[in-house]
Amino acid sequence: MASEFDLIRRYFTRPAVNAVLGVGDDCALWSPAPGMLQAVSTDMLIEGRHFLAATDPEKLGRKSLAVNLSDLAAMGADPRYALLAIALPAPDEHWIAAFARGFFAQAGRHGVELIGGDTTRGPLAISITVIGEVPQAHALRRGAVLAGDEVWLSGDTGGAALALAHQQGRIHLGGDDLVGCLARLDDPEPRVELGRRLRGIARAAIDISDGLLADLGHVAENSGVGIDITAERLPMAPALRACADADLRWECVAAGGDDYELAFTAPPACHAAIERIGAELGLALTVIGTAVPGAPRVTLRDVRGQPMQLARSGFDHFGA
Amino acid sequence: MASEFDLIRRYFTRPAVNAVLGVGDDCALWSPAPGMLQAVSTDMLIEGRHFLAATDPEKLGRKSLAVNLSDLAAMGADPRYALLAIALPAPDEHWIAAFARGFFAQAGRHGVELIGGDTTRGPLAISITVIGEVPQAHALRRGAVLAGDEVWLSGDTGGAALALAHQQGRIHLGGDDLVGCLARLDDPEPRVELGRRLRGIARAAIDISDGLLADLGHVAENSGVGIDITAERLPMAPALRACADADLRWECVAAGGDDYELAFTAPPACHAAIERIGAELGLALTVIGTAVPGAPRVTLRDVRGQPMQLARSGFDHFGA
Repeated sequence: MASEFDLIRRYFTRPAVNAVLGVGDDCALWSPAPGMLQAVSTDMLIEGRHFLAATDPEKLGRKSLAVNLSDLAAMGADPRYALLAIALPAPDEHWIAAFARGFFAQAGRHGVELIGGDTTRGPLAISITVIGEVPQAHALRRGAVLAGDEVWLSGDTGGAALALAHQQGRIHLGGDDLVGCLARLDDPEPRVELGRRLRGIARAAIDISDGLLADLGHVAENSGVGIDITAERLPMAPALRACADADLRWECVAAGGDDYELAFTAPPACHAAIERIGAELGLALTVIGTAVPGAPRVTLRDVRGQPMQLARSGFDHFGA
Repeated sequence: MASEFDLIRRYFTRPAVNAVLGVGDDCALWSPAPGMLQAVSTDMLIEGRHFLAATDPEKLGRKSLAVNLSDLAAMGADPRYALLAIALPAPDEHWIAAFARGFFAQAGRHGVELIGGDTTRGPLAISITVIGEVPQAHALRRGAVLAGDEVWLSGDTGGAALALAHQQGRIHLGGDDLVGCLARLDDPEPRVELGRRLRGIARAAIDISDGLLADLGHVAENSGVGIDITAERLPMAPALRACADADLRWECVAAGGDDYELAFTAPPACHAAIERIGAELGLALTVIGTAVPGAPRVTLRDVRGQPMQLARSGFDHFGA
């Protein structure tokens, strides 16, 4: 048993760089930057629920950290530190080495330092906590939307859900479509730089993990405003544009999870500034709707402004 | 499925008091106290490994947080915030309500605010992250021991391990012995106030979770000193004093885990100050040995100063 933990220690212990004290004591210690709020988020990924046993461990290492960094991005926070608690059914050096490679590659890209964690024997479970910093006035809270705000979305949605539909045998994807959608599902890109650039510009943000309408529903509820989305403006994954099954298309775009794009709102006066950010980052940023006075409800509307029945059912189906 | 998560949300969402933003956004936010280092630790508890399926969920809620608070205590940090990630096999309102009752009772006693978490379906696993604060100069690191320091232990050890031996059918306990030992195993008391009072007095500390000698081994290794322990000074759980099986007695006292007492070191000049702290807290604080120059090794010695073979074997057996 000792060798198992020695193995994990070997792969996951690196000297502290920015932290005052890293892995290997009762606690890790860090010195917060003056005037910054500390932001923290935690996510637990379970084999068989969030990923399959056959998942490439290197990609899993990258994704485990990515979904947590996405939460910091949605708050406009700079990522700083991470803790990794992991339960493993058996020591497997190949698996551990590959997971560590993916985890540290993602950490390195975003300036994140692993400062602590826990390892134990058990059914495969990965629990990551990330810590970041954001200036007090600029945190992008879910509850800060005002009626009249434009509602924006980064990138496009539906690709991850389409890849899942392929894996479940509901559809068949091939070629570039398959490659593109699998990349969205297995290797999401946390929009950390976008979150940082939106400080002082956007009012509120959320990352799309449970599905666009469900996540916007949280924003509407927290802010006490309605959100009207124009269906035809929704940017969809390239593979979905040719999808003949309209129900599946809408399900993936509006209700599919795991995209990890940012939805955010900002006053119309910030429109040009946001377009510039998109151009500088090489990332599509699209206005998909508007925050409106009234009941905290998300309404998907067709080109004539009529509520679409389809979206409502998708919305209910996913329990938001 | 929605009702399961609504249930968890209902039991675990409480309004933020000290935090700037608590449960219910992408991240929680807090404002660190000026001049304080932030301390963080994470632990994962797995059913069947760290606790039995039949464990009283209220006690489990208390213990899950206690073992994490113990890590903050061993750093001399004030507990501030906690995050709870939990995987549950099925919705069970009775279980969730009882776990929450225990968790919040422990949190309330130590001024801890639950500010975030994650819930998912899966084999029962509990991953808690705690955040605290400690003045920079006063953090009690494992690597700060100097040769000549006295080595202290709070309370006594062996009770939790004896309760485990009882549950495994290796021995039979009854009456007060059983009650006392089970309390040590199921409901440990994190030495938070002791850790706080030792700031500026103790040089190093660790909490006893893996066994006294194993944990002191980490301290010796991190500090580059030897540690000599006098066996007859070791305070043992009352139930152990009458234990006829000498091997079991030493195994429980010196190598048994789960006691969550603090072992710490301090210069002899601080002896009287530490005795006063013990008297004020109503907590036995005992000098059990000395830090010595030389190889970073823990040696258990008999009254004549001779190394004891027994301890060495226990030490190896537990893989430290």
